[in-house]
Amino acid sequence: MTDTFISSASRELKIGFDQPFVIIGERINPTGRKILAEEMKQGDYSRVERDALAQVAAGAHMLDVNAGIPLADEPRILAEAIQLVQSITDVPLSIDSSIVGALEAGLEVYQGKALLNSVTGEDERLEAVLPLVKKYGAAVVAISNDEAGISENPDERFDVAKKIVERAADYGIHHSDIVVDPLVMPVGAVNSAGRQVIHLVKRLREELKVNTTCGASNFSFGIPNRKGMDAHFLSMAIGAGMTSAITNPLHEEVMQGVMAADVAMGHDVNCVRWLKKYRQPAEEGTSARGGRSGGRRRRA
Amino acid sequence: MTDTFISSASRELKIGFDQPFVIIGERINPTGRKILAEEMKQGDYSRVERDALAQVAAGAHMLDVNAGIPLADEPRILAEAIQLVQSITDVPLSIDSSIVGALEAGLEVYQGKALLNSVTGEDERLEAVLPLVKKYGAAVVAISNDEAGISENPDERFDVAKKIVERAADYGIHHSDIVVDPLVMPVGAVNSAGRQVIHLVKRLREELKVNTTCGASNFSFGIPNRKGMDAHFLSMAIGAGMTSAITNPLHEEVMQGVMAADVAMGHDVNCVRWLKKYRQPAEEGTSARGGRSGGRRRRA
Repeated sequence: MTDTFISSASRELKIGFDQPFVIIGERINPTGRKILAEEMKQGDYSRVERDALAQVAAGAHMLDVNAGIPLADEPRILAEAIQLVQSITDVPLSIDSSIVGALEAGLEVYQGKALLNSVTGEDERLEAVLPLVKKYGAAVVAISNDEAGISENPDERFDVAKKIVERAADYGIHHSDIVVDPLVMPVGAVNSAGRQVIHLVKRLREELKVNTTCGASNFSFGIPNRKGMDAHFLSMAIGAGMTSAITNPLHEEVMQGVMAADVAMGHDVNCVRWLKKYRQPAEEGTSARGGRSGGRRRRA
Repeated sequence: MTDTFISSASRELKIGFDQPFVIIGERINPTGRKILAEEMKQGDYSRVERDALAQVAAGAHMLDVNAGIPLADEPRILAEAIQLVQSITDVPLSIDSSIVGALEAGLEVYQGKALLNSVTGEDERLEAVLPLVKKYGAAVVAISNDEAGISENPDERFDVAKKIVERAADYGIHHSDIVVDPLVMPVGAVNSAGRQVIHLVKRLREELKVNTTCGASNFSFGIPNRKGMDAHFLSMAIGAGMTSAITNPLHEEVMQGVMAADVAMGHDVNCVRWLKKYRQPAEEGTSARGGRSGGRRRRA
């Protein structure tokens, strides 16, 4: 059983084997969002603010903040965006950049224990990012690719994750502060993509005892009814043991899948959250145990 | 890898570890359906006919046929219903009764290799039903309860399944002709119900090497948004290795969950069935591999 603690100035969150699934809102990211990119570049964070509040209202437990804008001062923008988001919400943040200087700028202003997103298995990245994780007492997302790229063989990706965990230990970083992303392939291109994730999540959990995360929507890239597919991919991944995902909490189907999976994993005790969400007003006052008719139902 | 072969007069079906999930339509069952019960009792099978055709049209791979009507001549009615259904559709059937005489009456008229539903771990049932399975060359659903009832402990239910498989072997029935129902508890009453199924399906598959089935909708008994919950429970069970379920194919959410799970398990190669179902007319001509934009997509 492993718990990864993340916090804001006033709130602590656990990503853990026996915890409800953690949804990290993915929306604050200018990649592919031209208007947002332009606004952030101009120092206009009004859309960042709206995205933050909407995602938290929709049920995000954490928010990912990314400021990857070509030819912009990413460290400054990322730090400003983080300060803005922390001023209007108390959910913990994931500081997301491929630029080490931006990661550090984000860590400098962050209040609490952040999730740093991310480090890969490339030696250069490990040597640049792991000292930051240690210095700022953060947790970190470990993405299982290295100098050779992303292996199609999931067991090679496992080996990369193992290398990162071992290297982190050299820096005094405990495996509970590493959240591994086993890398989700698009199932339209890689037929075994789903089985790979199920296989890897099990190995990561049993052998490395680490929490896991993923960019869930990559699974449905290129196929129709993406939300329906993402929702079921996520509930299946949770069934296999995945403990968090970076995804869009504004997609109702996805949230339903996560909530159903929490029920099925026994992490929504007495179905309290499910009932709160789906019980019709007419049914108020009845409970999951209150039915009388039919079925092969048994008492606990 | 285990395949269970079932057939009608003209069509063979595999329930198997590496096969698409098999949906056994549950609708032809007078339990809790007063009008259907009365009609079947009077020899009116028009609703049975409509239920059969609608379920096959909705994607059922097999149909369960049950004629459990109090104070009626169940063996005769079950045999007539089976003959009627076999005259209008070629999907294999599951012959469903708690009365041994009705099971035999069904087997006598059935064309092909039926799935007999069911035998339990009670000695009396084993001694009555297993000889029929052997005599008619059928496959059988093994329900993991015995004289002591249904154990709350999943490993005790596993032991009952093991006993059935071993006893069947004494009758010369191969484990590939046994489809175990690990018994699905209502999660509103038993918080660990989902984890139990995931745990049991794995053990049944790895240790007994049997295919599995369940009455999926029992999981959501007593809680709201049952279809949403059933859909995710099923996709998670498929992720854990379940290979068939008796459920309602007319529920769109449930069918979507099964289709998504087939994709995620690699059992819908190139997402052909998913694309056929969900691709919009405007997208015809494009394929899962045809997209050009964005994403961390990789080639197979």
